[in-house]
Formats: sequence, C-alpha cells, structure tokens
Amino acid sequence: MPVDNLKELLENEETSEEQLREAVHQIDHFEIARLLHQLPPEEKVKVFQLLSDDIKKQEVLYETDIESRGILIEELGHENMAQFLEAMPKDEAVDILQEADLEVQEKILEQMVPDDAQTLKNLLSYKEETAGGLMSPHFNQVQPHEMAGDILMNFLRHNKQDHGTNFYVVNDYRELVGTFTLRDLLNAPPKALATDIIWEHTPQVHLDDSCEKVANEMDHEHISTIPVVDDQNVLHGIISFDDVLRGLKNTASEDIYTMIGASTKIDAFAQTTRSKIAARAPWLLTTFVGGMVSAYILKAFEFTLSEFSMVLFFIPFVLGLAGNVGLQGATVIVRGLATGDIQDDNLKIVIRSEVWVGICHGLIFGMVCGLLIVAVAKTLLASNPMLGLAVGLGIVLAVAMASFIGSLTPWVFMKLDIDPAISTGPVVTTVNDIAGLFIYLTTTTLLFSLL
Amino acid sequence: MPVDNLKELLENEETSEEQLREAVHQIDHFEIARLLHQLPPEEKVKVFQLLSDDIKKQEVLYETDIESRGILIEELGHENMAQFLEAMPKDEAVDILQEADLEVQEKILEQMVPDDAQTLKNLLSYKEETAGGLMSPHFNQVQPHEMAGDILMNFLRHNKQDHGTNFYVVNDYRELVGTFTLRDLLNAPPKALATDIIWEHTPQVHLDDSCEKVANEMDHEHISTIPVVDDQNVLHGIISFDDVLRGLKNTASEDIYTMIGASTKIDAFAQTTRSKIAARAPWLLTTFVGGMVSAYILKAFEFTLSEFSMVLFFIPFVLGLAGNVGLQGATVIVRGLATGDIQDDNLKIVIRSEVWVGICHGLIFGMVCGLLIVAVAKTLLASNPMLGLAVGLGIVLAVAMASFIGSLTPWVFMKLDIDPAISTGPVVTTVNDIAGLFIYLTTTTLLFSLL
Repeated sequence: MPVDNLKELLENEETSEEQLREAVHQIDHFEIARLLHQLPPEEKVKVFQLLSDDIKKQEVLYETDIESRGILIEELGHENMAQFLEAMPKDEAVDILQEADLEVQEKILEQMVPDDAQTLKNLLSYKEETAGGLMSPHFNQVQPHEMAGDILMNFLRHNKQDHGTNFYVVNDYRELVGTFTLRDLLNAPPKALATDIIWEHTPQVHLDDSCEKVANEMDHEHISTIPVVDDQNVLHGIISFDDVLRGLKNTASEDIYTMIGASTKIDAFAQTTRSKIAARAPWLLTTFVGGMVSAYILKAFEFTLSEFSMVLFFIPFVLGLAGNVGLQGATVIVRGLATGDIQDDNLKIVIRSEVWVGICHGLIFGMVCGLLIVAVAKTLLASNPMLGLAVGLGIVLAVAMASFIGSLTPWVFMKLDIDPAISTGPVVTTVNDIAGLFIYLTTTTLLFSLL
Repeated sequence: MPVDNLKELLENEETSEEQLREAVHQIDHFEIARLLHQLPPEEKVKVFQLLSDDIKKQEVLYETDIESRGILIEELGHENMAQFLEAMPKDEAVDILQEADLEVQEKILEQMVPDDAQTLKNLLSYKEETAGGLMSPHFNQVQPHEMAGDILMNFLRHNKQDHGTNFYVVNDYRELVGTFTLRDLLNAPPKALATDIIWEHTPQVHLDDSCEKVANEMDHEHISTIPVVDDQNVLHGIISFDDVLRGLKNTASEDIYTMIGASTKIDAFAQTTRSKIAARAPWLLTTFVGGMVSAYILKAFEFTLSEFSMVLFFIPFVLGLAGNVGLQGATVIVRGLATGDIQDDNLKIVIRSEVWVGICHGLIFGMVCGLLIVAVAKTLLASNPMLGLAVGLGIVLAVAMASFIGSLTPWVFMKLDIDPAISTGPVVTTVNDIAGLFIYLTTTTLLFSLL
C-alpha cells in the first residue's frame, strides 16, 4: 500500500524530502485526505505542503476532516486560504467556509476579491443542507431566442467543465423558462431556437427545499443536475448529483447521530477524544437528570415498594420495552418525514397506525408477562398471584403511553418548526422512561391497595 | 390539490369513469404512486387501470410501495406484469422483482422472452444494495479502434436515452479499456480513435462494492455514471446517479431501522398495522427476554437489596446511562464503516478513542452521582454516606463495560462477516443492559459487604 509506505517514510528520520514528495505523489487526493486525519498536526502540514499541484491541494482541503482542515488553515494563513477558495468550485468553497468558525470565515472572506467574496456570502446565507446551500452559481445559461447552432459553438469554444452539460433558458428577468441537455442540442436543427428545444416540463427545486427533496426530484426525473429557483421563479443556481450524494450522506449521518444524542455535526469520528467527550456530555446529562428523577420517583414509592419488591424486579423490563416501542414509533415517522415518504396527507394515517402498533405490543407483552407471573407466583415467587395482574396491567399502560409519546412528538416538533429528528434522541427517550416508570408504579400501587 | 380532488371523486358513487380518468391524468406518476398507498385494494387497481399510457404505469409500479405493488401484480396477472417489466429499464425491473416473493418472481420470469429473463436472472444474482444489484446492463459501448466521428454519428442516429452520455471502450475480451464523455467526443477530431480520447484514469467499481462505496467514488470523481467490472476487469454494466441516490436512501433507512429493531426491509411505513406488529415483535421479544433475565438477576440479589433499597433507586439511572454510552460508541463506528470514513487502517484508532470516551463519561457521571449521594445521604436519605461510594463505583464500572461492548461488537460482527449494523440494535442493547445491571449490583453488594 502506498499509504503504508508513506507512513513508514514519515516515521523514519532519515527520509529525504525528495523521497517523501515521491511517495505523496503516488497517492490519490482522497487517500491523502483520509491519511491526514491519522497524522499529528505537524505531519499534516508537511504532507499537505508536499502535494504537487494546487488542484490536488484544493481537493485534499475539501475532502479531509474538519480538524485537519482547521490546522491547515491556521498554518497556511487566511490569505493563502482565500486564494485556494477562489480557485475552487463555489459550492465546495462554501462547504469549507460553513464548517469553519465564524471568525475564520470572515477573515478569509476579507482577503478575497470582492466579487468572489460577495458570491460566497450570498451562498453562505442559505442553510447547509438545503437546495440553496447545495447549489453552485455556475451553469450554462442561454437566452430564449438563441439558436441551437450558436449555443453549441459557444459551449464547445468555452468548454467550461464545471458548468455541466445541461442548459438553462433564462429570460430578461432572470426567470427560468426551461431546460434542455447537450443531447437535445445535438439532435436539434442548428436554426432551432432555445425555446423550441426545451422540455415540456421543467423539473426544479426551491431554495429552501431539503436535500432529501432534491434527491427525490432528481431520482424521479432521472436528471443529474437540477435548477434552483426562488418564489419568483428566478434561477439562482444548479445542484449536481455529487453535491446531493454528499448531502444525503451527511443528513442521514446527522439523523443517526441525533438518535444517540451525539453531536449532529458531521464527521463525529474525526473529532479528538476530548472533543467527543464534551460534545456528547450534554446529552448524557439528560440521561443523568432523567436517572435522578427516576430515583426520586422510586423513593417516593418506597413505602409501597418495600412490601412488594417483586414490582421492582420488573422495572428494567418496563423501561426496556416501553423505550423500544416509543423509539420504534418515533423513528419510523422521523425517517418517513425525512425521505418524503410521509407527508401531510398521510401523516395522520401513519401516526394512528404507529400508536396502534405500540398499544398492541403493550397488550401482547404485558399479558404474556402477567400470565407468566401468575403461573409461577405461588411456587417460585411465594407471592400473591394478583401480582401478575398488577405488573401486567402496569406494563400495558406504560407501553401504551410510550407509544403515544413516541408517535406524537415528531408531529408536535414539526408544528413547532423544530427538526422532528430530535424525537428519536435522548430527551424524548428520557421523558418516555420517566413517564413509563411513573405509570407502572402508580398502576401497580393502586391495584395492590385494592387487594 | 388534484390528489384531493381525485380522492373526492373516488368517494362519490356518481362519478363517471370519464371524470376519474380526467382527474388521474392531471396527477404526475409520483403522486399517483403515493396515493395508491392510501387507497383500499380495489381502488388501487381502479386508479392504476385508468392511467393513460404504459410508461406512466411502469413508473407508478416502480415508485409505489411494496404492498400496493403486490396487489397490482395479483390483479394484472403474471403475463401482463412480465410485459411491463420487459419494457422497463433492466435495473428498475430487477428492483421490482427483488421486492416480490420468490414464487411470484419465478412465475413472472417464466412469462418473459427467454433473453430478457436471462438478463434479469443474472442481475438478480447480485445482492440488492451492491454495485451488481444497482447496475444497468445497457450503456454506450465502443471498440478501441472506432473513430470519434463514427461514434458520434452512431450515438445521434440511435439516440438511446437510457444509455446515458458516457462511453465505455471495451476490447475483444469484454474488458474495460477506458471511458470518455459526450463532451470529450465533441471536442475530439473526427478521425481520433476511441483509445486516443479516453481518460488517463478510469474510475470504476467492483460488482461486490457497497452502495456507499459507489456513491463515494462518484462523488470524488464527479461522474454521474460509473462502470462496474469483475475480478477480470470485464465490464458488466454501469450505475447511474439516480440508482445510487435511491440505494443510499434505502441503506440509510435500513441502518436506522436496524437501530430500533424494526424490519430492515425498506418502506416500513407502508406496511399495514398488522404486518408492522409482526415484523417488530421478534425484536421486542429480545427486550422481553432481557427484561425477564434482569428480573431474575434482581431476584437473585434480593437478600442484599432489601437492606439497601437505595441501590435499587438508581437502576433506571445505570441502565439509561450505560445504554446510551454503549449505543453512542456502536453507532459512531457502524456509521463510519457504512460511509467508508472508517476503514481497516483507522478502525483501531476509532475503537480505542470510543472506549476511552465511554470510560471517561462513566467516571464523570459516576463520580458526580456518587458525590451527590454522599452529600445528601445523612440528611435526606437517612442512610450511610458509603452508599454514594458504592453506587458511584457501580455506575463507573457498568458504563465502562457498556463502552467496551458497544465499541467492540461492530468489529466482532465485521470479523464474523455479519453486518455490523446490528450492533446498534436491540440484541446488543439488551446484552448491554443485563451486563450493566449485573456489574452494578455485584459492585454495590461487594462494597456493602465490606462496610
């Protein structure tokens, strides 16, 4: 492996710079980007400086993890960094700026040519994983009355690789009129007008649309780039499939990290141990507080409990089952909302179905558990068979409550304009645990007092 | 909304077929596909039959949920279905067959033209979310000695939309020699040979590569289609960005559903309530059994516990914290493996870091909890301050164990050639709960016996 070879060379103090340069040259930019993550700061800089050309340096800057990039920015200085970003595709430059601290962001922008800085500032104003944040402002723009022959000649003469092979017809008000492909252009008679060859239907997305929505549109329409417009149908940029691929990967990771209450910022794995501990601690604090509240509740029930310690034995059971049922409901709904499978018109159907699924699971497992306890109460547990009824009913009610909370919170958060993904995270899980525990203990205590 | 309009028409018994047909005509195939999900079986069939042309019917069949499709297949009959699939792009036809029962699959294949059936059977032999399962066998194939002018003329004359605008140069042994784009072709002199215009480096993926790996390659190389080869470098097909978008969405959903122990089969939301209950019950059964084992463990410790009921109050605390810490470690590693951010060369670094993060969290929260109990032991709890030491140490050890289990299981599953994603599911979580409970109780009991 060339990467292992490079690592060995770096460890050996007698390696000449020429040998290192040669080794670096043999590795593609993506492997270099991954390697930087594993190297100590001074070696990150060393390897980066050995890269043979600016294109490769740009690619490595774009691909590497946030921490390595931070160190490189510090070492290169803001002016050099500004030059790199000016030379990069604008949508990639924005991604890099978005992941930098605000202060660093401003310092780099100050060093740029004002025009470029303004373009980037405009792009920075959109949220990261929306169509606005994903788009590039460069594309093949044509006027409605241009002729196919001229358009093709212009295209071939300028040959701008980063503009793609789709064409967007825009009128004097910068409104999107239609679109056609290079293939359409080749098949058109040279005298045909742009408006003659545009498609009947123009796929497009809005600046605020989510990455998943963009992906769905591109998938359904089978197009590799899609235009982005505002409320007035003014064309702002285009999104190409590779930006969407990256965006999809990031949003899926964020949804998954939200479930475990880790920092939702991408590349959680690239952080140092110390920053990981800090990033996840606030969420564990929720669990901590929840645990304390549970302890308090248990203490409040202590009097009853001491007489029926059996009730306590099933606490892990109740928490596990209720937690899982609630999480299942919340997750299915959150994921469905994210992928667009669930929308306003079927949201209620899905919520109702999820609540029912949870209640049925509560009934099934609560009854099985209750019957098991009744069966062995006398012989194994030396206690009243009614214990089974109490524990069973407690489980049924606790799981039903978890199912309600889990299935309804995504909808509540959506109405409050908060990302519903947090319904699958530690806060809701903890609330669920506490509610379940309280209901279970109240039910069993009440039933016991009736015995 | 045209969809609401159609729903009203369907509910009204006096609606004429002509009105319905008109309403269906106004809705695009994707909305129809979503609508089918919400309709009762007989109306699904009715709406489908009203679709104006076969292309639209194919698209709806492809986009709709598994259940609706099953009903449509039953109603259409296998012969009609075979005709639909023959007319569809092969990679989409395979997706549909893959989601059908084996029996239905065979019956449909029997009704097909033998050549088509054989192509589909070959594609079916690859796993669903691998390069082989995603690829289409149709692409622009050229010989090494063909000339640019001829290639362009052929391309324009046949104008096969589903072949894309990339060209693959293949030698007599069907080996992939290189690739170029329509843009390259236009820029080449008409007499240039195919081998003169191919790129220096040919991006490609292997039949067995995962969907994420394909996505990463396409993202890094900025190409919208990628060729798929076997060990002998023989070209089998190409994957286009829209297949990858869909594949990525599915694999991310599967990873998320695995975390909650729901059926990992896509479109969990589209299932009926009954099938949801059945699909998730086996996983909840794990939680059930785990809860029973926990109850058994608690019973075994009963003698000690009755004297120190305070220990019991912190059980939800221990389970919550240990569960969360273990899940965080497992999830970060599983997700990193899925996206390719974590590979063999940095896996150990990440595991070590994750274990440390977990241990540190255990130390922090265990100590805080222990100190809190010591502080209030005499006044509020009327118990021995040493209780704090015991509970605190129990938490530290339980969380550390959870961190080990969570961070190491993905690696163990990977070595056993099992999808590491299940490390984030209910089985490992349950094992973690039981281990945590056992360690916590053993630690506290031991310490108490020393007091």
